[in-house]
Amino acid sequence: MLGEFDLIKRYFIHSRHGQRRDDGYGMADERAGVALAQGDDCALLIPTPGHQLAVSVDTSVAGVHFPEDAPPAAIGHRALAVNLSDLAAMGATPRWYVLALTLPDIDPDWLEAFARGMHTLADACGITLVGGDITRGQLAMTITVHGEVPANEAITRTGARVDDMIAVTGPLGGAHAGLIAWRNGVRDMNDAHLHAYLKPWPRLEAGRALRGLASAGLDISDGLLGDLAHLCQASGLGARLEAAHIPVASGLEKVLGDQAFDAALNGGDDYELLFTLPESSLSAARAKLAACGLTLSVIGRMCQAPGVHGIDTIQHGWQHFYGESR
Amino acid sequence: MLGEFDLIKRYFIHSRHGQRRDDGYGMADERAGVALAQGDDCALLIPTPGHQLAVSVDTSVAGVHFPEDAPPAAIGHRALAVNLSDLAAMGATPRWYVLALTLPDIDPDWLEAFARGMHTLADACGITLVGGDITRGQLAMTITVHGEVPANEAITRTGARVDDMIAVTGPLGGAHAGLIAWRNGVRDMNDAHLHAYLKPWPRLEAGRALRGLASAGLDISDGLLGDLAHLCQASGLGARLEAAHIPVASGLEKVLGDQAFDAALNGGDDYELLFTLPESSLSAARAKLAACGLTLSVIGRMCQAPGVHGIDTIQHGWQHFYGESR
Repeated sequence: MLGEFDLIKRYFIHSRHGQRRDDGYGMADERAGVALAQGDDCALLIPTPGHQLAVSVDTSVAGVHFPEDAPPAAIGHRALAVNLSDLAAMGATPRWYVLALTLPDIDPDWLEAFARGMHTLADACGITLVGGDITRGQLAMTITVHGEVPANEAITRTGARVDDMIAVTGPLGGAHAGLIAWRNGVRDMNDAHLHAYLKPWPRLEAGRALRGLASAGLDISDGLLGDLAHLCQASGLGARLEAAHIPVASGLEKVLGDQAFDAALNGGDDYELLFTLPESSLSAARAKLAACGLTLSVIGRMCQAPGVHGIDTIQHGWQHFYGESR
Repeated sequence: MLGEFDLIKRYFIHSRHGQRRDDGYGMADERAGVALAQGDDCALLIPTPGHQLAVSVDTSVAGVHFPEDAPPAAIGHRALAVNLSDLAAMGATPRWYVLALTLPDIDPDWLEAFARGMHTLADACGITLVGGDITRGQLAMTITVHGEVPANEAITRTGARVDDMIAVTGPLGGAHAGLIAWRNGVRDMNDAHLHAYLKPWPRLEAGRALRGLASAGLDISDGLLGDLAHLCQASGLGARLEAAHIPVASGLEKVLGDQAFDAALNGGDDYELLFTLPESSLSAARAKLAACGLTLSVIGRMCQAPGVHGIDTIQHGWQHFYGESR
């Protein structure tokens, strides 16, 4: 049986251009802003002058946030992706992350695939694993991500103004359909909905592109209506949606029938960005998102009256301890 | 039943001098280097120019790292303390932390006491809670701590030199005796050993005081022999201990008999600092630790020959997946 140090050395020391010692101690990677990673009591990181540090933490628990028997590469990808999505929502550039992994037992094949899924996404997004902890218990992973954003340029939830347009970076509801597909026995990762659910791609480029254009923003993790309500509350305003303009994921009606629109409104897990912007910034934002391969969909406008208006449905965004078990 | 947002608002928004909105969104606390905490996708932090960021993550799982039925205030204290101890070991100043809490159910009394234990220690050590996540599952908490240290002044594990003295900041074995006391039914937190086990105090002042004096260092979490082996390996050297000079916690022989010395060597969980220093720095280090209320005990010297010498016992420091269940 491998010990914790061996597990970390074998699966979780990974860098695109770092120098590590043969014994796994103390990787340094100046290009990644890492003075020392893994093997000591702390990692030592080199912040960029003039920037703020954006930090977020999210836990993914087997049986709650993902199916316990999902492909381990997808579990690794997804656990990191949902955290990167928080950096995207602030317009931050990913820098460093730490992983706390709780395992019921040691399965080398599972761990190898899990680590590969995580490292592949990390490399693509330019974030470096700098430390971690492995403990025994129910399968779960807690990731803390660190990004950087030029001082006072972060996109927060509070800046929306009356008459700002409300927009999203992509179609909604696909991840919810993927969850249902999984429950119905679909295991083909080429299924677009299943892929959207298990391997969401964080909208990092879009978030950075929207800095200076968006007045407020967040990522859609709990569902469009629930997350829009958060934005409204933080900005002290309301929102009026135009139902016909809400982009619904391709093929959603075919699999969900008359539940399709509800899935787009409340499904959650899509990890597209939801943001507000003045009409004067619209064409610039549209062009920047197009350069990221994304379509900007205007779905409504901010208004003075609190609440979300224009949709004849009950909002029931996902909350732990409230909602259905996933 | 309270939702995640309500739980965070009620128990986990806490600051000594921050300004928060009535709805719990977006605390700012410039004195604490916090531009925005809690309520958005990320916290936004303001790093100190000329400093490196020290980051560490540790998970505490009920039944593995602490007894599930331990006093919740002690669980909250301990979960943060073991992380702060990693900052202490680097000589870093605590700044910010995030908490990922996994709960099997919602018990307001438990949560209130847990949060109080954590906030009390945080306030005493000058670290600010800036974000978190609450999920459903087996009781566990993952904390990521962030500290700052002037660039290139951190105490690492690699800097020990031949003939450096080896020292510790306090007596050892008490926490292990506390674990045994708990198993034997002791529940009085005034019991010194139980207190050492459940409410360790991180040696933050000592760590900072040792910057520029210690050549290498770490905190004793796995046990003296195991952690000294880590330091030796990282520094590419060996250690020769003087058994008679190893400080044993008061009262240890009375409760552990002939197991007392073994507990001091291998018990773990003491969270004293273990460090090396040149003999020329000894009196200065001793004076600085005395100013922190601590006694510096020299327990041996570094040597060229790999391994830990001078102790006639088998090293069996704690490793998850190896060791006994705690």
